[in-house]
Amino acid sequence: MYWIEPEYLYVDGALRTGLGVLVSADDGAGRVVSVGRRGHDHFPVVTLPRRALLPGFVNTHSHGFQRGLRGWVQHADPGAADSFWTWREAMYALATRLDPEAFEAVTALAFAEMVRAGFTTVGEFHYVHHQVDGTPYADPDELALRVAAAARRVGIHLVLLRVAYERPGFGQAPNPRQRRFYDRDPDAVLAAVGRLRDHGIEVGLAPHSVRACSAAWLRAFARAPGVLHMHVDEQPGEIEQCLAEHGRRPVELLDECGLLGPRFTAVHLTHPDAAELARFHAGEAAVCACPTTELDLGDGFLRAWELRAPLSIGTDSHASIDPFAELRALEWHSRALTGRRNVLPHEGVDGLAATLVRIGTAHGAAALGVDAGVIAPGQRADLVALDLRRMEFAATRLLPALVFNGSPAAVADVWVGGRHVVKEGRVPGGEALALEAERALRRVAAG
Amino acid sequence: MYWIEPEYLYVDGALRTGLGVLVSADDGAGRVVSVGRRGHDHFPVVTLPRRALLPGFVNTHSHGFQRGLRGWVQHADPGAADSFWTWREAMYALATRLDPEAFEAVTALAFAEMVRAGFTTVGEFHYVHHQVDGTPYADPDELALRVAAAARRVGIHLVLLRVAYERPGFGQAPNPRQRRFYDRDPDAVLAAVGRLRDHGIEVGLAPHSVRACSAAWLRAFARAPGVLHMHVDEQPGEIEQCLAEHGRRPVELLDECGLLGPRFTAVHLTHPDAAELARFHAGEAAVCACPTTELDLGDGFLRAWELRAPLSIGTDSHASIDPFAELRALEWHSRALTGRRNVLPHEGVDGLAATLVRIGTAHGAAALGVDAGVIAPGQRADLVALDLRRMEFAATRLLPALVFNGSPAAVADVWVGGRHVVKEGRVPGGEALALEAERALRRVAAG
Repeated sequence: MYWIEPEYLYVDGALRTGLGVLVSADDGAGRVVSVGRRGHDHFPVVTLPRRALLPGFVNTHSHGFQRGLRGWVQHADPGAADSFWTWREAMYALATRLDPEAFEAVTALAFAEMVRAGFTTVGEFHYVHHQVDGTPYADPDELALRVAAAARRVGIHLVLLRVAYERPGFGQAPNPRQRRFYDRDPDAVLAAVGRLRDHGIEVGLAPHSVRACSAAWLRAFARAPGVLHMHVDEQPGEIEQCLAEHGRRPVELLDECGLLGPRFTAVHLTHPDAAELARFHAGEAAVCACPTTELDLGDGFLRAWELRAPLSIGTDSHASIDPFAELRALEWHSRALTGRRNVLPHEGVDGLAATLVRIGTAHGAAALGVDAGVIAPGQRADLVALDLRRMEFAATRLLPALVFNGSPAAVADVWVGGRHVVKEGRVPGGEALALEAERALRRVAAG
Repeated sequence: MYWIEPEYLYVDGALRTGLGVLVSADDGAGRVVSVGRRGHDHFPVVTLPRRALLPGFVNTHSHGFQRGLRGWVQHADPGAADSFWTWREAMYALATRLDPEAFEAVTALAFAEMVRAGFTTVGEFHYVHHQVDGTPYADPDELALRVAAAARRVGIHLVLLRVAYERPGFGQAPNPRQRRFYDRDPDAVLAAVGRLRDHGIEVGLAPHSVRACSAAWLRAFARAPGVLHMHVDEQPGEIEQCLAEHGRRPVELLDECGLLGPRFTAVHLTHPDAAELARFHAGEAAVCACPTTELDLGDGFLRAWELRAPLSIGTDSHASIDPFAELRALEWHSRALTGRRNVLPHEGVDGLAATLVRIGTAHGAAALGVDAGVIAPGQRADLVALDLRRMEFAATRLLPALVFNGSPAAVADVWVGGRHVVKEGRVPGGEALALEAERALRRVAAG
């Protein structure tokens, strides 16, 4: 056990002085034992002057390997029509090239960048399962286990969202570039989930989208244990396909298939109509927004101020890995779209900032079914220390400035389950991980 | 003279190796003498391994003192209607409190944060001129000279955009909270511009807005020498006021008053209609976008992909001070609004990134009338070295990653006119400036 005592501790939506946290262990499974004033016990003490200690951020939606696309998809041939769908072809080109070693290396780089940015838990929406020709690996869970290995190397807490991918889309011919994704039937997916749980991995189930799963598959997953995540209403094109196949919009279909409920997280929900939104709210499901990816891919803007569902954040394609940028985008986009200011629900002088912190922490933990996201007894000791000496925080009201002006550069130290995984802004071994990912990507590109 | 030799030098829209820059002096007035391969001359050499050297960014639109609002305006009473106009009341409350010492201290903090973020020139849109009761200071240019002093302390290159402020708005009673802004008549403004130029300050003229200046004032400024900057079409409310007073929209009025032309920069231009946009393009004027402030204030989104005018960036209210965030927002917002990707004009694989760099550098320099914004012989030696070792740049295509994943934390070193003003990410004396600004703000809040 050890005691962490920062200058400011974030509890109950506010920064408070004079408090510390007793942590049970430094091994990655450590929990918060108590929060309060330091007693006369003889635990080792970590003091953090000029630091604010917050719960670690939760990255609810990640495709780690897509980190390999960064910088390579920020252009298009002049005159060419570039969109989400052409980006997807570039993503498929990468997905069809990566061997298990490269897949692990790039995923580990993404996870390392996440912890350095203050994320302590990641929900990895994992959909590349098989060999390049579509046949299973000798161990059918090879790539899922690579994701788990990448998380262990970095020390981030992983929830693996095992994706179910049936088909290219309603009435579409099988796409050879999706061969690594397809499952045989829903039972095969549920069996994979069971095997991964037997490996000790925390697993949720993720029907990819209404494009990739028929109604029969969706119904088969309605009673699966654990959390359910799914891409919903990201692009107008997928809604049109859903209307063509089912005569109803995606949220209506999900409701009829029995998927909506408190365990269900809709990723994106960028283009629901009013009827879908009402049905979604009635179903008490949650939403994960990925604002920087939604910008990068041209998806559109989440109408966050109209949501009554719990909202969390994800960095998705890793166009950017920065929890602060995702959080302020939710409020800032809402302002630009409404012409008003301070529009997300809040109470009191630091209430809007507290709302955004809750979206970045507790709501993400709830969406992934993990005991984290608040600094309280019994919760995982997932903690982030922010450096208050930075010039952008000088002469400010602190909590709103931390959210609206925070960045990965402000993250000084990170603990995941009590284990110290970022030290003074550095991930131990991070340079080696970066080099390994660069070499792996060059190797598979060369063929 | 000295030679700077980075691993990559940004010239002609690309990162190139093996090149360096010969700088004439290290005193703030240094210029680029030559760009090329190092010869056998015996100049001192600054080598920059694992660095990319770019032209310094230009902050075309700043209100430095508004840095004092950061964190204090990110909330509203629940149920209260918060908007640009209520934010403006908070800004007036600060503007009416600051004495010259506090004004200088807060402005210096904003300027320090700018150079640390990679800005080497600032266009300070300066509108607080008089004592709190509206009477002139003993030196009528007291506060403008304080702005110049703040720039000197930090080492940023200043263009002072001397604001003309006639009135609260068409048909509105004088606002006691604007007393520090008002000028007697256009001649008084032109006289102030002349005096400041005699002080050796680079000065442009800035009629505040169609709200604050009548058509008679606008006409009086049409032939003034130097650059002209003006807030245009930021909020629907100001367009309605303009239609009520003049029966025409702002850009039409500006054209009729003779203001449009290559020397003119419209700040914001968020809500032009099609006729205004056509007229604006015909007038060959420029636009300065301030995306993070436009988000923060709920102004709306610039339709950047429809612009044919040269575009530059500003951090305006300093809700954020980060050139990279402003630049990528221009492209990202355009994607989300159009549903397409890579929509700003560009050619080739690094062309979109080069477009954004040009917006952040050369276009800003042109808008402010300074010889900067490209690394070329005869130009000011305003240079920014980015740290390529950072994890967010690993395994990327470099130039797009620098723009889409850059941040102030990636800025290692900055030279303004050859003077080394940021060293390994630190502004010498920055902590003292921050402390001075905090104390000054506390003092005027208490007093």
